[in-house]
Amino acid sequence: MEFKINNDYFKKAVLEVRNAVSSKTTIPILTGMKIDAKPDSLTLTGSNSDFVIERTISIVNDGLSRLEILETGSIVLSAKYLNEIIKKLPNDIHFKVDENQLATIKSEEIITKMNGIDVTEYPSLPNIDLHNIVTINSNDLIEIIKQTVFAASKYETSPVLTGVSFSFQKELLTCIATNSHRLSLKRLKIKSDLIGSFIVPSSSLNELLKLFGSYTTDIDIFATKTNIVFKSENISFYSRLIEGNYPSISGLFSQQPSTIVTLDTKQLLEGIDRASVFANEWRNNNINFQIDDNSKIMISSMSSEMGEIREKQYIKNISGDEELSVTLDGNFMMEALKIIKEKEVNLCFNGSIRPILIEPIGNGSHLQLISPVRTY
Amino acid sequence: MEFKINNDYFKKAVLEVRNAVSSKTTIPILTGMKIDAKPDSLTLTGSNSDFVIERTISIVNDGLSRLEILETGSIVLSAKYLNEIIKKLPNDIHFKVDENQLATIKSEEIITKMNGIDVTEYPSLPNIDLHNIVTINSNDLIEIIKQTVFAASKYETSPVLTGVSFSFQKELLTCIATNSHRLSLKRLKIKSDLIGSFIVPSSSLNELLKLFGSYTTDIDIFATKTNIVFKSENISFYSRLIEGNYPSISGLFSQQPSTIVTLDTKQLLEGIDRASVFANEWRNNNINFQIDDNSKIMISSMSSEMGEIREKQYIKNISGDEELSVTLDGNFMMEALKIIKEKEVNLCFNGSIRPILIEPIGNGSHLQLISPVRTY
Repeated sequence: MEFKINNDYFKKAVLEVRNAVSSKTTIPILTGMKIDAKPDSLTLTGSNSDFVIERTISIVNDGLSRLEILETGSIVLSAKYLNEIIKKLPNDIHFKVDENQLATIKSEEIITKMNGIDVTEYPSLPNIDLHNIVTINSNDLIEIIKQTVFAASKYETSPVLTGVSFSFQKELLTCIATNSHRLSLKRLKIKSDLIGSFIVPSSSLNELLKLFGSYTTDIDIFATKTNIVFKSENISFYSRLIEGNYPSISGLFSQQPSTIVTLDTKQLLEGIDRASVFANEWRNNNINFQIDDNSKIMISSMSSEMGEIREKQYIKNISGDEELSVTLDGNFMMEALKIIKEKEVNLCFNGSIRPILIEPIGNGSHLQLISPVRTY
Repeated sequence: MEFKINNDYFKKAVLEVRNAVSSKTTIPILTGMKIDAKPDSLTLTGSNSDFVIERTISIVNDGLSRLEILETGSIVLSAKYLNEIIKKLPNDIHFKVDENQLATIKSEEIITKMNGIDVTEYPSLPNIDLHNIVTINSNDLIEIIKQTVFAASKYETSPVLTGVSFSFQKELLTCIATNSHRLSLKRLKIKSDLIGSFIVPSSSLNELLKLFGSYTTDIDIFATKTNIVFKSENISFYSRLIEGNYPSISGLFSQQPSTIVTLDTKQLLEGIDRASVFANEWRNNNINFQIDDNSKIMISSMSSEMGEIREKQYIKNISGDEELSVTLDGNFMMEALKIIKEKEVNLCFNGSIRPILIEPIGNGSHLQLISPVRTY
């Protein structure tokens, strides 16, 4: 196995795949990155218990010759050390593996030798049905994930809630995440041959955001009962699926709100951020919203020990009851508002114990719910 | 007590003083920041067991009226919460304290109330002899600290070595720091009425670097047996001194080196950084330097498990013995080279067991020593 490659190009690919490799595993082969040199391409593979990243570098790329395969072959090298070395090499890299699995990496006057592991020990990738497929632009995919994944549960007590539910219908993808105290839902129009619902772990989706964040490309999505694959021209991202039934949300959005308040998204976020200074000290980050008349909403928090903070913000529009007091988790509210791009939001209240609906104005495809905190 | 102040201006001052206040202390008053409103200025004070920061804001500042004192008085408020609140306020601040030590901070429609502590409980500042004084420009002071403090010991087993020794003579300041394996010395020409040697804790000096880093100003230095003060127009920084005798360095620099090698500073640093990839796995971050002929130096490290890395760098100039093999702590060597601004350095070797002298070319005021590691 032998190839020559542009160092910057190799550096980027190694770093992308390195993120899939956990250094915590006790199985030595899984701390490694697999490198396959084929006649026309180089493939790097890294994996952990949740997902696998496969990155291909073709010998023809952007019309420039950045890769030259001199001899085909495969090797597994420590992902951590490979990444550490490659990122520090100043110029083109000459990579060669001898019959004893010893890799020699040469760049200018710098020679690195690394002990490799035989590639036959490396686990094989899941088989995927390539027929049922949906193609989504990476920007749309990233947006739908960003606007839902934050709402998933951080606790393994309810495994299905640690993932995001992807429901593919013929013309609609619906993503939902909830930790049972707040929920985020986002819809996207698609044309899909892939039909079904899949729960994808948040850890995989957060990595996927990093991986595809710097590309604008079409992404093909395939799935089996146990795996889902997101595939662009050069990158394949395999994630395991979470088994189980995702809770039904039917009925959650059908209530008629008793009060609808229109507020400036950014100003509201800043107000809650300020009020949260004292709320952090308190259980549940409690922030209180109160309306006394129809022109202002008061946002406040207090800690009996430290003090209190309260501010009034102008209401842009109000309909329904004009008297209201609701206490919410300030962190949930801030996370909800942070991923809303629209300038204004409607907060739809239904008394002080039913969930609040957050609705960005001018974007019907995205809804969020937050349950109030009971205070006595 | 009552004043009005520009929020950005107050924010900066509060943040500077907040850094002196540890939230870990069990004495409530020491988690606080003291605020004194005098007729013509506002003074903020924060302290911990190592140092005190006193920041003054005058009512006349840059010709702009950014502070208006309405009623004099003093209060101590939680430094953490004060900083959290102030940094989030959008506009001018109206600050008022009532007879029950309750502070009300108002900015636009945002009202914060904080419980204060009576100021009489706050510890008083050390008395300083204002006669024996030396004045140093902040840029020179920052440079002399940066070029020595990194070399001090991180371990409390030898307290004097956790500080930097400041020796003031009539026309020369010498700063030295060492952890007994490496040493950095820097000299600065001064005109001083302050004569004596003082050991200043590294933690104080690292804070001082942050505090004065954004200002170019003259700094007056005073000292007593137990304290040293660095004072600019608006900031007084009091540090405790470390008791004890700093080790003598006489004789350390008098040896005649057997080999002097001139190398490019940046390239050498990058080479050691690369070689350190495998060295980290090994004890002492061992990096080997080897000269076989008079044109190149080989930098290498190896880990029997992972592999090895070696590179050759061109020697710009060499005098003395042309055969040499020395093993050093790569991290010490990198920290030494990082704070050298000069393009080239001399490495002066004296066999493989005596300390290596690092001498920036064109800067006689700065010297460093690193002891080799014995390898068998």
